[in-house]
Amino acid sequence: MKTKAGFVGLGAMGLPIARNLLAAGFAVRAHNRTVARAAPLVAEGAELASSPADTVATDGVVVTMLADDVALREVVTGKDGIGNKLGRGGVHVSMSTIGPATARALAALHAERGTAYVAAPVFGRPEAAAAKKLWVCVSGPTAARTRVRPLLEAIGQGIHDFGEEPHAANVVKLAGNFLIMSAMEAIAESQTLGEKHRIDRAQLASFFGETIFGCPIYQNYGRIIANKVYEPAGFRLALGLKDTNLVLDAAEEVHVPMPLASLMRDRFLSGVARGRAGMDWSAIARAVSEEAGLE
Amino acid sequence: MKTKAGFVGLGAMGLPIARNLLAAGFAVRAHNRTVARAAPLVAEGAELASSPADTVATDGVVVTMLADDVALREVVTGKDGIGNKLGRGGVHVSMSTIGPATARALAALHAERGTAYVAAPVFGRPEAAAAKKLWVCVSGPTAARTRVRPLLEAIGQGIHDFGEEPHAANVVKLAGNFLIMSAMEAIAESQTLGEKHRIDRAQLASFFGETIFGCPIYQNYGRIIANKVYEPAGFRLALGLKDTNLVLDAAEEVHVPMPLASLMRDRFLSGVARGRAGMDWSAIARAVSEEAGLE
Amino acid sequence: MKTKAGFVGLGAMGLPIARNLLAAGFAVRAHNRTVARAAPLVAEGAELASSPADTVATDGVVVTMLADDVALREVVTGKDGIGNKLGRGGVHVSMSTIGPATARALAALHAERGTAYVAAPVFGRPEAAAAKKLWVCVSGPTAARTRVRPLLEAIGQGIHDFGEEPHAANVVKLAGNFLIMSAMEAIAESQTLGEKHRIDRAQLASFFGETIFGCPIYQNYGRIIANKVYEPAGFRLALGLKDTNLVLDAAEEVHVPMPLASLMRDRFLSGVARGRAGMDWSAIARAVSEEAGLE
Amino acid sequence: MKTKAGFVGLGAMGLPIARNLLAAGFAVRAHNRTVARAAPLVAEGAELASSPADTVATDGVVVTMLADDVALREVVTGKDGIGNKLGRGGVHVSMSTIGPATARALAALHAERGTAYVAAPVFGRPEAAAAKKLWVCVSGPTAARTRVRPLLEAIGQGIHDFGEEPHAANVVKLAGNFLIMSAMEAIAESQTLGEKHRIDRAQLASFFGETIFGCPIYQNYGRIIANKVYEPAGFRLALGLKDTNLVLDAAEEVHVPMPLASLMRDRFLSGVARGRAGMDWSAIARAVSEEAGLE
Repeated sequence: MKTKAGFVGLGAMGLPIARNLLAAGFAVRAHNRTVARAAPLVAEGAELASSPADTVATDGVVVTMLADDVALREVVTGKDGIGNKLGRGGVHVSMSTIGPATARALAALHAERGTAYVAAPVFGRPEAAAAKKLWVCVSGPTAARTRVRPLLEAIGQGIHDFGEEPHAANVVKLAGNFLIMSAMEAIAESQTLGEKHRIDRAQLASFFGETIFGCPIYQNYGRIIANKVYEPAGFRLALGLKDTNLVLDAAEEVHVPMPLASLMRDRFLSGVARGRAGMDWSAIARAVSEEAGLE
Repeated sequence: MKTKAGFVGLGAMGLPIARNLLAAGFAVRAHNRTVARAAPLVAEGAELASSPADTVATDGVVVTMLADDVALREVVTGKDGIGNKLGRGGVHVSMSTIGPATARALAALHAERGTAYVAAPVFGRPEAAAAKKLWVCVSGPTAARTRVRPLLEAIGQGIHDFGEEPHAANVVKLAGNFLIMSAMEAIAESQTLGEKHRIDRAQLASFFGETIFGCPIYQNYGRIIANKVYEPAGFRLALGLKDTNLVLDAAEEVHVPMPLASLMRDRFLSGVARGRAGMDWSAIARAVSEEAGLE
Repeated sequence: MKTKAGFVGLGAMGLPIARNLLAAGFAVRAHNRTVARAAPLVAEGAELASSPADTVATDGVVVTMLADDVALREVVTGKDGIGNKLGRGGVHVSMSTIGPATARALAALHAERGTAYVAAPVFGRPEAAAAKKLWVCVSGPTAARTRVRPLLEAIGQGIHDFGEEPHAANVVKLAGNFLIMSAMEAIAESQTLGEKHRIDRAQLASFFGETIFGCPIYQNYGRIIANKVYEPAGFRLALGLKDTNLVLDAAEEVHVPMPLASLMRDRFLSGVARGRAGMDWSAIARAVSEEAGLE
Repeated sequence: MKTKAGFVGLGAMGLPIARNLLAAGFAVRAHNRTVARAAPLVAEGAELASSPADTVATDGVVVTMLADDVALREVVTGKDGIGNKLGRGGVHVSMSTIGPATARALAALHAERGTAYVAAPVFGRPEAAAAKKLWVCVSGPTAARTRVRPLLEAIGQGIHDFGEEPHAANVVKLAGNFLIMSAMEAIAESQTLGEKHRIDRAQLASFFGETIFGCPIYQNYGRIIANKVYEPAGFRLALGLKDTNLVLDAAEEVHVPMPLASLMRDRFLSGVARGRAGMDWSAIARAVSEEAGLE
């Protein structure tokens, strides 16, 4: 018999992830606020749930992939939320990018009910999700982590375990997004320096991407920033601002000044102020060019 | 008959590079201010030159690998410099990390004498130099670049050609060092955030180094900064300050604000102020920890 | 007959302000969470109220001076809050340093009840409050502003009117605190530069305070930062962090990057991380010295 | 008999200063590279000198007010410079804004010749110079300082003595210019915050200028930045960049990180990149507005 899995949130990331669960043999029962988004998944065999609570099967495992902390809290604690429906022994696998305070609060709520919060945020763009190439970070109670491992193996190319604490994997995700945005800033500054010294931006990008920075982040963003084409967005600049605020809030909580994160916040905020909220977050590179008198 | 090559500057990088030239069959005639440094090279078959000028053979190719712009200018234009000795058609292959203004000034000096300045800075630490694993950027007059190509192939794993302009490869080198120091700052901030959320720094480093940042810079500096061991230095913090000033000067010349480079300059300057000039340049991570109340 | 005035919040600022109201002939009915704090005021003729709601007299004017947005919201909307007690035509004079979003939210709550929110934050330390030397910024509905003017005249040396919008005076207060903290950073950097060039910090401070910066902020903080004595606190560093966050939140709301405010946030956050939360907020100058290798 | 004074440099500041010397009864012998600039001074009784050296009278006191370190070095050490002409006991009163390294180098050159370098930079715009309202900082050998005091009294409203060291007064001048530019940044950020919250910039400026920041710098720049009128320039933005570099160089010399000065350097550099070199230096406020999506 198939293992059951509830799924809430069929956005750009959620949909391909849910598809991979289906493909791997899970019986998926899914909910999305905009019902139409669920159609392709249902066509592939998923059941449609009328609410987050309605995704919960007897097996008691529900995956959520939502836009932000507020949406996630609502899906857990709202009237038709999964919180009261999961049932003792149930597991909530949370893949959203959220702050550690929310993670701990949800973990506490679950603990009261005898259910478990497992943080399982992922790294990778929608194409990577579709290709089962995500990197998954996981943390939470050991038994629950062990139980959902097959599910996580069905959606990614590698699982990295950060232990018992509910917030740990969420902090790792924030750290990663911070590393990515920092690399974008460095790339943008270096290419602008190069451009004004009459060096081809694309050549600069490919040189570093082929040598000392031979990794996806530098290769992809090096190319995007060299080409200066920021639409359509792979990850929206407005989300970059949201994530930077999560990083800074997580840092404030434990009293860590992060001047580079502060710089990035100003970059994203300026991007939003200048009407670039819907562009790719790497569009912060435009401000670097503008400050140098280009564009 | 062997191709001849003069060589000036047998420091941590120069010595292994010169050795590889010898090993590849070049007749190397080398000079170093501190003569003792030349001993191992002479033992392997190099000739000892009494001055920079004295390294110049009839073939008229001299490689320089020196500490800074001032040292390089002296080696070219000084009393016993190579400038007047090279002879029409001679080529000066400059591997030092210098500013574009110096590059252009030297190129102009050479052009007056009918000799050529070829910029050929390299990426890689001393171990990489020894292993013939350097990445070489090259720019300068086409004929000269073509002529010295076999020499560059003898010392690295790949040559990237940035065209005719004398300063181009030097700017690429500065851009690269800026990218590296920026990555160090981002790594340090992310690890400090992690540490204060009780996440193991080493695990954080290895996660990113194995996944989205799977490239040498993040792997090596991720590990060093996780371990907080900054001695002995691979590249001295004082040199980090020097290079950041070269970056900022190159940026000022073409009117490019680089706020992240400004941040790095303050980091290195503070490192020097606190007695860390001789540590590895990644020791800027200590300030990140200190500002968060650690250490 | 005396004009009546309710008063909530008898802290370092609230107490001397309430005393000046008493001295000016107002019948003050005051509440403070810690009752003992009210004793001196009662000794001078004030009535003691058992709750915020209990401070409301038939005249329907209540002044609040509270620690933060959360405390203020509770005093207005809590079970024993002033909100439902004020009565149609009542006026809430809010002197706390709060964010514009809270100001607008409270103004809306009051408007629903037919009462008015008047923002009246003040500039000045406790000594200035005692000496009736505060500067008062005011904004809110015209009729309400006009009505409470005598009350504001009783506590300060000048009233500046910022019009109808509820949040306006609150934003001015945040802007002012931001200007002060920025001046502290500039003073600290300039004095550290001077000190390491063997110039006396105190002489530097007095020179600028007597000439081009002949105003209280530069005179007072110039002297404090020159002397490096940060205890006892005039205004606690932890409150500096709180206010900087209010500034940044107010800026984010309208999409204004404030890099200098971001720098100050990092300074205050680092101060808290290093155990200086209870020192005067000018103790951020210590980090400037430390980064220069002093102390 | 009149006391004689040589004078080199009749720019926007030099000319009114030289006039005040004339008015105070000094016999002024003046030189300016562009001779026409000297006409008004000659009309008022000054003698015209054909070179810097030619300004030196038997009394051996020469005042210089020049554009930068390079121009000043040339006027002292150049072929027709004052260096060899001053004669034992002569005094060079240097009013230019220069770096401490240049100050010490010139002091050493003078000491070798038995002449003295007295640093006497001034604070104030051209109007203040004309009105004899400058603030003068002075440092250098005691006897020389004492000797030139009457001269300094003739041009300003107050003299502040910073002792024996040649560079001291020059560092004070740099510290002051840094304080001014920092205030401009803070003013610009606070006004942009206010504007986007629908608060009148001019009212904000006048409020602070009349209360806690009741001093010339905040009053003048508060008004200029509120009005957003940056031409004609009182002090050119390009000079702001030059001075910020002097500040940062002076700080680097003694290992002092100055993050706020680094921020200002990026502001000025961006201003130059965007074609604002000839505007008033307060035009850095435009970038603050632009980053917030205004303009």
